[in-house]
Amino acid sequence: MSARREQANQEAFRRLVEGDPVLIDVQKAIDVLPGMQPNMVLTSGRPLPWDSYVGAQRMAILYGAMYESLAETVEEADRKIRSGEILVASTHEHGVAGAHTGIHTASTPVFVVEDRATGTRGHSSLFEGDAPRRLNQGCYGDDVIALLRFVDDILAPTLGEAIRKSGGIPLRPIVRRSLNLGDDLHMRTVAATLLFTRALFPALLELSRERPEEVRRTVSFLETAEYSFFRVELAMVKALTDAATGVEGSSLVTKMAMSCDGFDVQVSGLGRQWFGVPQHPTFEGKFFRPETRLEDCGFYGTDSVIVECLGVGAFAGAAAFALQNWSSSERLVARSLAMYTITHGEHPEFKIPYFNFRGIPTGIDVFKVLETGTVPLINGFIVNMKGHGLAGAGTLHMPLGAFQAAADAYRARYGDE
Amino acid sequence: MSARREQANQEAFRRLVEGDPVLIDVQKAIDVLPGMQPNMVLTSGRPLPWDSYVGAQRMAILYGAMYESLAETVEEADRKIRSGEILVASTHEHGVAGAHTGIHTASTPVFVVEDRATGTRGHSSLFEGDAPRRLNQGCYGDDVIALLRFVDDILAPTLGEAIRKSGGIPLRPIVRRSLNLGDDLHMRTVAATLLFTRALFPALLELSRERPEEVRRTVSFLETAEYSFFRVELAMVKALTDAATGVEGSSLVTKMAMSCDGFDVQVSGLGRQWFGVPQHPTFEGKFFRPETRLEDCGFYGTDSVIVECLGVGAFAGAAAFALQNWSSSERLVARSLAMYTITHGEHPEFKIPYFNFRGIPTGIDVFKVLETGTVPLINGFIVNMKGHGLAGAGTLHMPLGAFQAAADAYRARYGDE
Repeated sequence: MSARREQANQEAFRRLVEGDPVLIDVQKAIDVLPGMQPNMVLTSGRPLPWDSYVGAQRMAILYGAMYESLAETVEEADRKIRSGEILVASTHEHGVAGAHTGIHTASTPVFVVEDRATGTRGHSSLFEGDAPRRLNQGCYGDDVIALLRFVDDILAPTLGEAIRKSGGIPLRPIVRRSLNLGDDLHMRTVAATLLFTRALFPALLELSRERPEEVRRTVSFLETAEYSFFRVELAMVKALTDAATGVEGSSLVTKMAMSCDGFDVQVSGLGRQWFGVPQHPTFEGKFFRPETRLEDCGFYGTDSVIVECLGVGAFAGAAAFALQNWSSSERLVARSLAMYTITHGEHPEFKIPYFNFRGIPTGIDVFKVLETGTVPLINGFIVNMKGHGLAGAGTLHMPLGAFQAAADAYRARYGDE
Repeated sequence: MSARREQANQEAFRRLVEGDPVLIDVQKAIDVLPGMQPNMVLTSGRPLPWDSYVGAQRMAILYGAMYESLAETVEEADRKIRSGEILVASTHEHGVAGAHTGIHTASTPVFVVEDRATGTRGHSSLFEGDAPRRLNQGCYGDDVIALLRFVDDILAPTLGEAIRKSGGIPLRPIVRRSLNLGDDLHMRTVAATLLFTRALFPALLELSRERPEEVRRTVSFLETAEYSFFRVELAMVKALTDAATGVEGSSLVTKMAMSCDGFDVQVSGLGRQWFGVPQHPTFEGKFFRPETRLEDCGFYGTDSVIVECLGVGAFAGAAAFALQNWSSSERLVARSLAMYTITHGEHPEFKIPYFNFRGIPTGIDVFKVLETGTVPLINGFIVNMKGHGLAGAGTLHMPLGAFQAAADAYRARYGDE
């Protein structure tokens, strides 16, 4: 490796690990997302032509337009998208990372995380609970609308005010501690959600004098919705990876994203360009129901796979042995160890107790991926494509082709070094 | 082993693992501890003649008498103890388990835990925070008094009311989950304290309307005092081990306790009798300060070693790799595995994720200890005997002699089978 690439990677790595992300607010998308429009629907993954959005991701976009009152029916929404009255765009181009299909419209409340080291901001919508049917999974109906209304009317304003009252919630301590408390921070955010809830509690207590019922419902929600922190984390990783984007000469991966059409990555030294393949990960894990068949399952797109760029999720699986109800301790350890072979360095503060507090493997290097033939692993879900929602949980092996494409582009730009 | 002993051990084991402990209240010792007297000072370990209490444990008893206003000086307290005006007794004979020297006087607030399966109750005083000088460590002064006043006047009444308002806090779910969240439940109770705090949130919110300042201070305390749950746990294990006491023919250990004078155990089939040796555990761990010398360190007594009777602490060390800042993952695993060789069974609900959710090793059998020569291990502290407080944390190897003495008594009573 050239000294120049090494130095550039060190700089991109530094921005990833030295960021100081603080959760500062909850605001409506239209008020905080760069370039957001009243008639815009954002969705996960690289931008696709409208006709390439299929299945649950297509339905989620149409339903998102309806929830935002941009259309009354899916047919009307489809027509308005074709005519340009409704705009469809990619989350990542508007400062936001989305879970599942990642639908964000103008009125969607989003967490606002600021990296105080660079001023970069990231955003993500709020978790609406463990219900099997959700807009982000391409479902719609009165049940789905009720969940979103709760988020819009109760959860978001209450959390927003509590966050502002508390002067912002520093996220490094929550991430650091949750890895000591058995979270991988992709499939388990139980400890992080507990720590996040506790951090908000003094402000919620204060707020409860004015709005006792809203606070009571918010606290009750956070008690059961133990995946709530993940959206804060998405906003955080979006900010940190954006801060690490555009380091001239760096071959570190700054984005991974799935759409219904395939898998794509961005590389720091190549800016905001996507490199991908029309291919989805292979799945190794457990189905929630024994009758589920792999051939009925697939992926509808998600930005959540970005968190592994920071070295949490599957990279930190050895911090979260409770995950082995769909894996095994041995596999979680082996997979985390493998990720050290494709990353630039070890995080100086976020550590894995089982490895004698070795830092999590941070900063995927496309060339290390190619040299070792080891693809990044993701702790994630697979979806039943027949509309039955999440079908199973496990480890996703990401397609090598996206990293090959990025490496080719890197060589084309920087030469073969 | 005889069929009778096997059956008796199964029954004692059943009482340990099928108990349904619920935290129901905080009350003053005088109001809830069986046989408690206004002029009584309780302390950890088996009962000793007054002159056998030495060092920090003796000082803690004298200071306890002063805090309760039974005497104004240590000299007066000593005189009144000799004359019988002040009574000194053992925690375990009054339904309570004590941390460190375990001082409980009439006005000491205690957690009340009821095992709903048997009706048995256990108690323990409240954690007063991480201050280096505390009454239970044999320290006294304005700083120590201020901590105790906070507990008496703010923490205990607020927690008591919150617990009653919430209708009791079931403890099985907290213990089960905290083992998935990296607690061993002796040296780490971080997750359990978070879960406990969250369980109280709704009641605290409600209570804050009447007493905002008390609730604010209580919440702020629980945020930093991450060892708070341990006292709830002591009360819980006291109840469960009392429920398992007195099963005719059982050779399971129902109590372990230290005094300044030595180490003692009780065995289910031998009732409330103590069997011990004038000997303390050996220590393997890390000192907090590099200049500490082992020869300056020792033990002043504690009932906290009781929790290993349930199979948490060192027995569940492989659930808590974050502890390896004074150990190593390999040692934590090896030690937990060794404990399976001296226990009756595996807990059906409290499990260790790293061992593919194998139940924690529960129910120490004195005969298995002797047959294997493997002594119970404890995750605990060692104390600087020159009055400098806690000196280090690590694994304690308990003296074999106490188990030998109990086995001899068992054979004398039940025959050599």
